[in-house]
Amino acid sequence: MYKKLKNYLVFFSIICLVVSCNDESVTKTDSISQSQHPKLILTAQGVTAIRAQLGNIPIFDKTLETIKAEIDAEIEAGIDVPVPKDYSGGYTHVKHKRNWFVLQKAGLLYQILEDEKYAKYVKDMLMQYEELYKTLPLHPRTRSYARGKLFWQCLNDSNWLVYVSQAYDCIYNYLSDEERNKLENNLFKPFADHISIDSPQFYQRVHNHSTWGNAAVGMIGLVMDDQELIDRALYGIKDLKLDTKEKDDDGGFLNKDGKAGFLANIEEPFSPDGYYNEGPYYQRYAMYPFLIFAEGLHNVRPELKIFEYKDGVLLKSINALLNLSDADGDFFPLNDGQKGMSYYTSALVTAVDISYHFGTQDPGLLSIAKEQDRVLLDDSGLAVALGIKNGKAEPFNKKSINLSDGPNGEQGGVAILRHEDIELVFKYAAQGSSHGHYDKLSYSLYEKGEEILQDYGLSRFVNIEQKGGGNYLKENKTWAKQTIAHNTVTQNETSHFNGKYEIGSQHHSVLNYFSSENKNIQVASAKESNAYPGTEMLRTMAIIKDEDFEKPYMLDIMKVTSNKVNKYDFPYYFLGQVIQTNFDYKTPKTLTTLGDKNGYQHLFVEGTAKAFSDNSKLSWLNKGKFYTLTTLTNTNDELLFTRIGANDPEFNLRREAALMLRRKNAKNTLFVSAIEAHGSYSPITESAVNSNSSLKELKVVLDTETYTAIQITNLNGNAKLFITVNTEASKEAKHNLKINHKNYEWSGSYYFK
Amino acid sequence: MYKKLKNYLVFFSIICLVVSCNDESVTKTDSISQSQHPKLILTAQGVTAIRAQLGNIPIFDKTLETIKAEIDAEIEAGIDVPVPKDYSGGYTHVKHKRNWFVLQKAGLLYQILEDEKYAKYVKDMLMQYEELYKTLPLHPRTRSYARGKLFWQCLNDSNWLVYVSQAYDCIYNYLSDEERNKLENNLFKPFADHISIDSPQFYQRVHNHSTWGNAAVGMIGLVMDDQELIDRALYGIKDLKLDTKEKDDDGGFLNKDGKAGFLANIEEPFSPDGYYNEGPYYQRYAMYPFLIFAEGLHNVRPELKIFEYKDGVLLKSINALLNLSDADGDFFPLNDGQKGMSYYTSALVTAVDISYHFGTQDPGLLSIAKEQDRVLLDDSGLAVALGIKNGKAEPFNKKSINLSDGPNGEQGGVAILRHEDIELVFKYAAQGSSHGHYDKLSYSLYEKGEEILQDYGLSRFVNIEQKGGGNYLKENKTWAKQTIAHNTVTQNETSHFNGKYEIGSQHHSVLNYFSSENKNIQVASAKESNAYPGTEMLRTMAIIKDEDFEKPYMLDIMKVTSNKVNKYDFPYYFLGQVIQTNFDYKTPKTLTTLGDKNGYQHLFVEGTAKAFSDNSKLSWLNKGKFYTLTTLTNTNDELLFTRIGANDPEFNLRREAALMLRRKNAKNTLFVSAIEAHGSYSPITESAVNSNSSLKELKVVLDTETYTAIQITNLNGNAKLFITVNTEASKEAKHNLKINHKNYEWSGSYYFK
Repeated sequence: MYKKLKNYLVFFSIICLVVSCNDESVTKTDSISQSQHPKLILTAQGVTAIRAQLGNIPIFDKTLETIKAEIDAEIEAGIDVPVPKDYSGGYTHVKHKRNWFVLQKAGLLYQILEDEKYAKYVKDMLMQYEELYKTLPLHPRTRSYARGKLFWQCLNDSNWLVYVSQAYDCIYNYLSDEERNKLENNLFKPFADHISIDSPQFYQRVHNHSTWGNAAVGMIGLVMDDQELIDRALYGIKDLKLDTKEKDDDGGFLNKDGKAGFLANIEEPFSPDGYYNEGPYYQRYAMYPFLIFAEGLHNVRPELKIFEYKDGVLLKSINALLNLSDADGDFFPLNDGQKGMSYYTSALVTAVDISYHFGTQDPGLLSIAKEQDRVLLDDSGLAVALGIKNGKAEPFNKKSINLSDGPNGEQGGVAILRHEDIELVFKYAAQGSSHGHYDKLSYSLYEKGEEILQDYGLSRFVNIEQKGGGNYLKENKTWAKQTIAHNTVTQNETSHFNGKYEIGSQHHSVLNYFSSENKNIQVASAKESNAYPGTEMLRTMAIIKDEDFEKPYMLDIMKVTSNKVNKYDFPYYFLGQVIQTNFDYKTPKTLTTLGDKNGYQHLFVEGTAKAFSDNSKLSWLNKGKFYTLTTLTNTNDELLFTRIGANDPEFNLRREAALMLRRKNAKNTLFVSAIEAHGSYSPITESAVNSNSSLKELKVVLDTETYTAIQITNLNGNAKLFITVNTEASKEAKHNLKINHKNYEWSGSYYFK
Repeated sequence: MYKKLKNYLVFFSIICLVVSCNDESVTKTDSISQSQHPKLILTAQGVTAIRAQLGNIPIFDKTLETIKAEIDAEIEAGIDVPVPKDYSGGYTHVKHKRNWFVLQKAGLLYQILEDEKYAKYVKDMLMQYEELYKTLPLHPRTRSYARGKLFWQCLNDSNWLVYVSQAYDCIYNYLSDEERNKLENNLFKPFADHISIDSPQFYQRVHNHSTWGNAAVGMIGLVMDDQELIDRALYGIKDLKLDTKEKDDDGGFLNKDGKAGFLANIEEPFSPDGYYNEGPYYQRYAMYPFLIFAEGLHNVRPELKIFEYKDGVLLKSINALLNLSDADGDFFPLNDGQKGMSYYTSALVTAVDISYHFGTQDPGLLSIAKEQDRVLLDDSGLAVALGIKNGKAEPFNKKSINLSDGPNGEQGGVAILRHEDIELVFKYAAQGSSHGHYDKLSYSLYEKGEEILQDYGLSRFVNIEQKGGGNYLKENKTWAKQTIAHNTVTQNETSHFNGKYEIGSQHHSVLNYFSSENKNIQVASAKESNAYPGTEMLRTMAIIKDEDFEKPYMLDIMKVTSNKVNKYDFPYYFLGQVIQTNFDYKTPKTLTTLGDKNGYQHLFVEGTAKAFSDNSKLSWLNKGKFYTLTTLTNTNDELLFTRIGANDPEFNLRREAALMLRRKNAKNTLFVSAIEAHGSYSPITESAVNSNSSLKELKVVLDTETYTAIQITNLNGNAKLFITVNTEASKEAKHNLKINHKNYEWSGSYYFK
């Protein structure tokens, strides 16, 4: 057997050499006839190489063994292709979803193991789908704006076809012409038509849903060698223009500017840095169709140079996505993002393997692949497995990074400041499509993968049928998207842009400056001028490592300038147990809500205080670590302890706390805060280490249109000065400033000493 | 150097052979003169054996290296012996506490490494203590019933002396006669007197505090060879009787029956099974003085046969304690127990090593020692290190176990039912001394170390100074100890025994039966007749593994018999997110408290419902697993969702939920519930597996004084019958019962089929 494989290898090598002397094209493109299969993801050459290495590539062998066991059990259990009936989480939904994965994997096994039982299984199940599909009306559940046939939404039908195209490619040569005609005419072609021509409101737009649709149509087109389908995938449905004012289920515009097709879907949502406008949770979801279709295009239509499209943005986006995760690999839950989703998800196995293989063979990716502990069973997975086997893996070091948003990188962005175990995620992006939240200049803060100040994320239990069918809950709109649910300023108890998508989607925040050159002082500064007309918010956030403090601390300067008097609410969504405050507070006997709309209706007030000193402090303990917030207050300020969970008739919300600073009757104002992570507590040793703040005082020593200067004094009396440039900040500009008779000279966007 | 060691070894071996031909005494007792040092914990022979093995015993070598690095850093930093000033958590407290550990470890290093710098360091610090101690009045902080001098309470002074005795023993021979006299006369003797003769309310009683006192006095007595101190340690202060009615800070009696001394402290709190009456958290704390003093006695006074005392209860107690931990090694938080304390604590390193060395060399203990990843640097640690090195470790398998309570094992007990990943802890013990809760027949339920239904534990942040000095918070009494804080029945909104320790401490529950022979059906049943005069509660709890269910489920039958009409509240302290109920509930706009005393004042009502069917169901999700409670209700029952945290002016309580079943106007009644653990949810795959209950119906088919029979029907309609014997249950008794014209015959305490 081994010898036979070796012979194949030699044979193919010769063919390849004959066809092309360019090494690149030998390894990475299909130089053989379009009619050869497999060609889409697995390639004929890849299969040969894999077979030759089997038993000798540990992570690949292990993945193969796992998948073989899984599929053998499925084959044992028998095929079920039920008549569609349920929403997400229900039996028929789960079964058809399961089937798409099983088909794709069984196809791979047939190719790699050359065992016909897998081909037969795929064929048998596809024939049952063919039998069923031609009888199907629209799915009986009506909640979607674009109903599928196998599933309640076209989106899931598209998922199915993206995977099943791969299975079909793998057994293509196993089938007779007649069988292929039957499947293509009764199943694949009508299937592709339903999710595209019959569902333009789903297909003909720039949206993650459409990307799935495009990939589905394109991939089956590549396998079937159907140019019309391929074009429809790349460029959208020919000559079709949709009403640009219509909206989808989530409140997003259906097709605001008439763009459509896979290339437009790459063009629009990705910034040049690879940031995806809906945020990492949806990027992770969208990555699979982007990358798997790109891999197919690369293999079958190498002349398109898809991985070089838009300056290589697809591969850049993988790097951006990996950087949008915390120390545990969990994605930051920007916009609608379910917490706990991480780079261990299978879409990221695809992303990491493809990025390694088709990119620059970054050895850092191999260490992530090792943590993922599995690879794709295809050419790229083989490359990763060989890289790991040959000891090439190196740590994937996440650094501070600034990711622009918008197709041209001119619609704000997301800055991540990192030092030691502290990570700060500062969002000054555009709206983030229909999944965006009204959270301009919001942030969240992490220590070693644990939340210090949280972003709530979404209100949804994805795929848990008992919770609203696994779909968005109404609290997602009434709570999770609202400004007050975020660590930013709410003005007059209304959300940014009045919580209106039509307005929000026209605007974005603007970077003032980002500076990460000095690893001890990481700073990002951005301005928002449209969330509240007449009010400007400039927020400057820094992670500062200073010898006077145990760990890097966060400094936060929010400068608000308004043309009228307002009420500002500024919450801190801390997690854990209150340890100490330096202010006296009262706790009410009965809990009432803080307000009746814009998210306020979901907050109970658990404690109230009048700030009485210049610095108000709250210390808390979470997961064995102490944290202290120090914030500048005046005696007119109120401090509120709030708890999420009011007006929550189905217990959809988590009962989590915040301290809220409320400043009334203020026009221009400055919020200045520091958060220290310090010390530790172990319930095993029962020792509390460094449980007190090291910060004695925060003080504004200057605040002008151009500069804001904050003095930070530690417990020993050591004082440092941080000066941020509020206007026209630049790396080069020289500054000369007198504060209290002392001259400060520096060049760049900030001063710290 | 090595050769020199070898020579020593030969030399000692010869001496040993001359002195005794009994191998046992060679290895485990000090056959050499009482004046030889070290002799207390490290022994001269032990030191020789250790030195001979160094470099060849990985876990020992690693521990030594860690401790050496730690102590070298301390020596580098210099000595500080501050004037006492603070409560727990404050600087002087923390420093003196640190010093005792450092002294003990430095002493060990001197003996093992033969480097005089360690001896000098210990001497220098002891001399500073001598200098300070003779000037000290009582500690300035006055909160304790028995103030120490170095610390605010004698308890901590005793901790200090227990450790420092070991350090003194290690450098005894390094010191001159004059130096020893100085230390003994000005420091150790007055120190021992202060915590005993001068503080009889602390010393002269049966209590974990006194155990520390006894051990401290006894250990320094053994080192100093002072018979009077040794006797005072073993038997208490001679001829002293205390007022038997006085109470300590925690509300416990100071000395109810006049017993005192180390032997009485072994006699009283341990049951013959080794259960410690205050529960595992305090047992863990008490174990160190028990075992370390016992080891010292064993070494210096082998004729006392301390490890055989009371049928070997000290070693049995270690086994009991290890069994009182969950799958992660965390102790069940019975009574006042801080969650998270586990067998990774250093006291358990002592316990495991001593149990292995002086017990039966149970290979299961070696696997725990491996997890602890360190050993004692003494003879027992050497034995463990050698055992591990020689590959003797085997898994420590925790099984179902019934631990009797009370000096003679006749005061109820604690039953732990285990099957697969499910653990149920059922408490039918005596009051548990002053640290007991009013929680008769309460239980908690775990899956793989995670809480399904929690026991709240205590209300205290041990050693976190900002939270009430790290001491018990007032909510410990007003909430944590109250009956309503536990998973058991509260009658008429009053706690068991009216929450009075004087009454509670006179009573205990009584075992009906415990059965663990059939691993698929683990049952414990117990009765409480005194908590509410005129009311009897018989609770039968089972963990049943049945093929109709994915995992073992809990069945709970609480039979209440009363001489009058009452209101019963029966809470389920679930953790996590509500997923589904089969009853409609209303959530109030404002949250008010459930009551105004006995713990009710700490509960907000978050939801209310009238039960409308025979079975009320609640499903929830916690840490990726689904759970469903099914409980028998009638249409008069109320269901309340409660949340802890009302009347909590300093945020001392955790905001956690319960579902509470309230049954009014009932005299005799039956509560029957099942809890299923089922399925899983992963935020990475986003797939919800088996998220629905498999239980269709719970039904009472018979309930008499003698028998209660519950029918359990699963979703497929398969019905099983569980019959429990309510009176005079025994393994042998034969039963014959007709239910609905069908005969059931069995022998034993229960029937299940």
